[in-house]
Amino acid sequence: MDYYSEYISRLIEELSRLPGVGLKSAHRLAFHIINMPKEQAESLIFSIQNAKKNIRYCSLCCTLTDREICPICASKNRDQKTIMVVENSRDLAAYEKTGRFEGVYHVLHGAISPMLGIGPNDIKLKELIKRLESEVKELIIATNSTLEGETTAMYIAKLVKPTGIKVSRIASGIPVGGDLEYIDEVTLLRALDGRVEL
Amino acid sequence: MDYYSEYISRLIEELSRLPGVGLKSAHRLAFHIINMPKEQAESLIFSIQNAKKNIRYCSLCCTLTDREICPICASKNRDQKTIMVVENSRDLAAYEKTGRFEGVYHVLHGAISPMLGIGPNDIKLKELIKRLESEVKELIIATNSTLEGETTAMYIAKLVKPTGIKVSRIASGIPVGGDLEYIDEVTLLRALDGRVEL
Repeated sequence: MDYYSEYISRLIEELSRLPGVGLKSAHRLAFHIINMPKEQAESLIFSIQNAKKNIRYCSLCCTLTDREICPICASKNRDQKTIMVVENSRDLAAYEKTGRFEGVYHVLHGAISPMLGIGPNDIKLKELIKRLESEVKELIIATNSTLEGETTAMYIAKLVKPTGIKVSRIASGIPVGGDLEYIDEVTLLRALDGRVEL
Repeated sequence: MDYYSEYISRLIEELSRLPGVGLKSAHRLAFHIINMPKEQAESLIFSIQNAKKNIRYCSLCCTLTDREICPICASKNRDQKTIMVVENSRDLAAYEKTGRFEGVYHVLHGAISPMLGIGPNDIKLKELIKRLESEVKELIIATNSTLEGETTAMYIAKLVKPTGIKVSRIASGIPVGGDLEYIDEVTLLRALDGRVEL
């Protein structure tokens, strides 16, 4: 990087800190940005500044929003008594895209991971527990099917069960269209354990 | 993207315009930036602004630099009479890393491509021709070994040859460590044509 001006090196360094951006991509991105028309670069900067300034957590479900209460939590058409717990706002969007879930969400912003030192207090769990004080019919845990996601699901289930609120977990199994030949063993066994009568 | 605040959608849109950044990466990058500490986001913005403000073309070789004349063109240790022509500043850096080239560069910022409608006037060719008015011993054309790079090399060679200045092209052939089995036919034939006596 010594072959470039310090301003270029600095930009490359900043960009290479972004997730999924290696040193090669950072180089390409940096030169692209440098060669961009001025207005386009300003537009990029403006969008970053605006997002940083206006985006906050919904005071109910903790998803990222620009309002005090997000449109889903504020909607009268949603069943406020059914809460789906997800790890992040992208997972929320994934379920919203299906257009079939009529309840509301709770976004944890992470999952419990003893390996990474992420405990229950590092995710939006207190906020979830507080929501259970109002009338809740069912808590659907839709954390990822990873070690961290499963740990988090177990933790929440244990915590909530004594309250009598119904707690469920989204099914794990063969993805639709999935070819058994290419599916890992753990998923195959999960699908077997979770078999339903026809 | 309707599941997100317009500020998030806008940021995703801006990011997805960057080269090599698909919609999925743009999502990931956007949420990463939103969750970044404020200082880190400011540091990213600052590096973009600084690079845009301070980086310009070297008035001799046209490489990207923060000075009127880049350190290579300004160096007394470099042979100013040998000019290597490259497509962009990254290619310049690639040769600089070898530490073996003692001449100077000329950065075209592109290559002639009739397909993309990029003609000789769209790259820094006039600037190169102007440099030939001062004493130049050899012009080494190191454009890429692509259709565009070869076209550009041929164009420059035709243009410069009448002036009597020596024009050469970097060799094409089997890359060092390359296994013939995996090398494409065109390269194999090039290597054969360019064989040197031992």
